[in-house]
Formats: sequence, structure tokens, C-alpha cells
Amino acid sequence: MSNDSIDPRWLRVAEEAARAAGRLAVAARGKVTVSSKGLRDVVTEADYAAQAAIKAIIGAAFPDHAFLAEEQDATPGGPSDLTWVIDPIDGTTNYSHGVPLFCTSIALTRGGESLVGVVYDPLRDEMYAAVKGQGAMLNGVPMRVSERDRLIDAIAGIEWASPQALRVDSLRRLAPLGERVMTIRSPGAAALSLAYVALGCFDIYFNVHLQPWDTAAAALMIQEAGGRVTGLRGEPWRLDSGGILATNGLLHEAVRAVWDEE
Amino acid sequence: MSNDSIDPRWLRVAEEAARAAGRLAVAARGKVTVSSKGLRDVVTEADYAAQAAIKAIIGAAFPDHAFLAEEQDATPGGPSDLTWVIDPIDGTTNYSHGVPLFCTSIALTRGGESLVGVVYDPLRDEMYAAVKGQGAMLNGVPMRVSERDRLIDAIAGIEWASPQALRVDSLRRLAPLGERVMTIRSPGAAALSLAYVALGCFDIYFNVHLQPWDTAAAALMIQEAGGRVTGLRGEPWRLDSGGILATNGLLHEAVRAVWDEE
Repeated sequence: MSNDSIDPRWLRVAEEAARAAGRLAVAARGKVTVSSKGLRDVVTEADYAAQAAIKAIIGAAFPDHAFLAEEQDATPGGPSDLTWVIDPIDGTTNYSHGVPLFCTSIALTRGGESLVGVVYDPLRDEMYAAVKGQGAMLNGVPMRVSERDRLIDAIAGIEWASPQALRVDSLRRLAPLGERVMTIRSPGAAALSLAYVALGCFDIYFNVHLQPWDTAAAALMIQEAGGRVTGLRGEPWRLDSGGILATNGLLHEAVRAVWDEE
Repeated sequence: MSNDSIDPRWLRVAEEAARAAGRLAVAARGKVTVSSKGLRDVVTEADYAAQAAIKAIIGAAFPDHAFLAEEQDATPGGPSDLTWVIDPIDGTTNYSHGVPLFCTSIALTRGGESLVGVVYDPLRDEMYAAVKGQGAMLNGVPMRVSERDRLIDAIAGIEWASPQALRVDSLRRLAPLGERVMTIRSPGAAALSLAYVALGCFDIYFNVHLQPWDTAAAALMIQEAGGRVTGLRGEPWRLDSGGILATNGLLHEAVRAVWDEE
């Protein structure tokens, strides 16, 4: 198989693993023990159990692939240069408080580039999926970003960084944008919010700091759905960029201009 | 029947009407025509259809009751002093963009006081309900506000006012609070966000301007679940107050203190 070819099993196994993680998370709702990982950062037993389920399913199918997952350090792979980037429960704060909004994010990457990505909302049984060069779909139906081209008609999504300096930066960037857009949404699960940009129900999303496991699947989805993903200053986005600005493309420069004015 | 007594049919009919409205809204998803009612204010055919269904069901059961509903002027009632306060689709912006978060809010009021209130999320089939003096329930299970008493552990909900001066005020109030709480959530349907305070998954909610149909059901729910509802300055809250601060009670003064410092 050449480096560019996509193995159709990758998507199938990613979806299977995401459904298994989602089932575990839903079954454990309301019974979880919450631990602190630091300021504004929590983890539950369900995060670990869901991650173990994902790794077991993917590891059985592709034993030589590597893992980079939220709830542990990286696991070196075998001879393959393929790495699975995993957030077993994105939206753990929601999950631990009982807010019914969380998802699982799984991507397969090579050299920092996503080849396959899935974001699964288990409470709605919604599977957002993308394959590089082959488009993006929600439950098998192709997705396309919105065509809104005026800020005043746009919904802007944001989630809130935890470290204090980044929290302040989030609020500082929201203020001028919030004065100009139609409205602002914070569901509280970044991968799902990004998937909403691909679906076309959000027009803009930004976050001053996300981890690779928050973005690896959904950023591919947005690009495959016709949208644009960059860093906050419009620079090329990479998995380890931290800051992210994702739009339908039409509104990208308008958001950049709002921040440049400040 | 004395003025203080509760007719058990009120809740049953309110729930029936909310389910009918929800079914209509879900069935019409993705096929609606959106009209502008002004800056950042939209309405769809589904809002009108859902409202008509609610009024038909309630009107058949209680022909002498009055109505105050979002998508029309008030309808005078007969000899009764009871008024149904209705938002057929709360979260119309979400609904019209395809964001899967909206609800129906129905309350029965007398003299500006809510006696019965229901908030229904049709996509999750979640019925939040309260009866004055008889508690609050989600799908029949009693609800109780959270016990979190530190801002840094709290989730604060907000939705965003549409008129420009109020939008700026929303952003101005969020900034100091957002620096202090665990995180911020904006689902985009105020009645549902308020119900989440009653459920204990949000600890704080504020909005610089809501209408009676956004709050009439959910404010009763929060009070019946042990929480506290005031105006933004801590003054007694009324249906026509506009601004609202709702908390689990334990965090009420802490939020007030953050704003007093500014």
C-alpha cells in the first residue's frame, strides 16, 4: 500500500471504537468518581474505561499502530508511522456535572496529518466522520459548511481555556467578536462544536488553546466539508498549534479583521 | 376551588401541549422558512405551528384561560384570572441554523406568579416540570439544585441578548465572572439552560434580558428545586424583570460580589 492510500478498515474500526466508548460513557453517567487533574481540569473513571475500550478495539485490528490519547502519555507503535489520536470523552466537565453534551473523538494521523477522523455523540447517536480526500458525513449523509457571509448572521462557537492567562485571552477575543455576530454558543465539547462547523450549523469556531486529541478528527472534517482551519493569526494550522480558528471559509478574514482592529 | 389550590389537570395538559409542540418542531427540522423579526431575531413557520398546537390543546381544556405567547400579542381570557405564558420554540436561532438544541416552555400564571411550568426538550424527550409548592421533576424524577459553593467549581450558563446595548452588557458582565468560574456554557435555549440550574448541572445562570415566556416555567422550577432567582442586582425577580440571576442559592452572593467589584 502506498503512503497516500487509505485503508477502508481505518474508518470502520474508528467508528466501532467510538461507539464502544460512547456506550461505556452513557452507561456510567451519574455514577462516576471525578478527580482533579489541575485547575479547571477533571477526569472520571469513565474517561479511562472508554479510552481502554478504544485502544483494545483499535489495537486488535492494527497492532503496529501507535497511540496519543488524552488520559495518558503516548504509546509508541510498531513499525508503522500511523498514530491514533484519541479523546475518549471530550466534554468531561459537562459529563461530570451531568450536562448532556459530550462526545468521543478518534483520528488516525501520519506525520501530523489526519487521514481519518470520527466524532461521535452517543446521546444522539450522531456519527460525524471524514476521510482525507473523500469528504465528510453525518450518519452517512454528506456534510457541507454553511454559506453565511455576514458576521451578523453567524453563530460563533467557543469553548473556554482552563489556565488563567488563556481564560482571560478567550474572554478578550470573544468581546469584539461577540458584539458583531448574531450569537455565541458554548456547548462545552470542542470536537463536537468543530463538527458543527463542518455540518454548517455553526459558521465560526475559535479556541485559544486546544490539544491534538480535541482537533485531529474535527479539523479534517471541516476541511473535507469545504471550510477553513488556521491558527488564530491566520497562519497555517497544525495539530500542535494550540489556538484554532475554523470557519466556513467565507467569514475567515472577517473574524481576523475584528481581532486585528483590537 | 380556592385561589391557592392547584388543579392537577393543569400540569397534565401543559405536558401534553409541550409534547405536541415538540413533535411538530422536530418533524419540521430542516424544512423551515426563516423570517427576520429584527436585529438578531428570527422566527420560523414551525414557531407559529407549534404555538397554534399548544393553544388548541390548552384552549380545548380550559376555554376561559388567557394566553401570552412569544409569536403574537396577548389573547384576553374569559372570566378566569389564569394566563398561560408560552414559548413554542425557545432557541429559534439554533433551530433555524440546524443546531440540535431547542425546547418548548409553557407556564400557567396567576397575577404574575407561576403555578405550573414545563420545559420540554423534544430531541432528548426530556420533560422538566414544576408545580408551585410540590417540587420539580425531570421525567418524573425529583430535581434538586447543586451543592457547589465555590465559583472555581461552577458552571455558569448564559445566553446572549440581541439588542446591541444589551449584547455589550452581556459581554461586560461575563468577563469578570468568566475569569472566576470553572467554565461557561451557552446552549442557546434560555429556558433549557435555566432548567439545567434546577437539575443541578449548571450552578449559575444569568441573562441581561429575557422575556416572560423564557422564564415563567423555568424560574418556578429553580425555586421548587431549592435554588434562588433574583434580578441582576439581587432585587426580587418578577416575570417582567428582564434581567435574571439564577443560582443554586449558595453562589448567589458570590456572583453579585463579582459584579459589585466592577
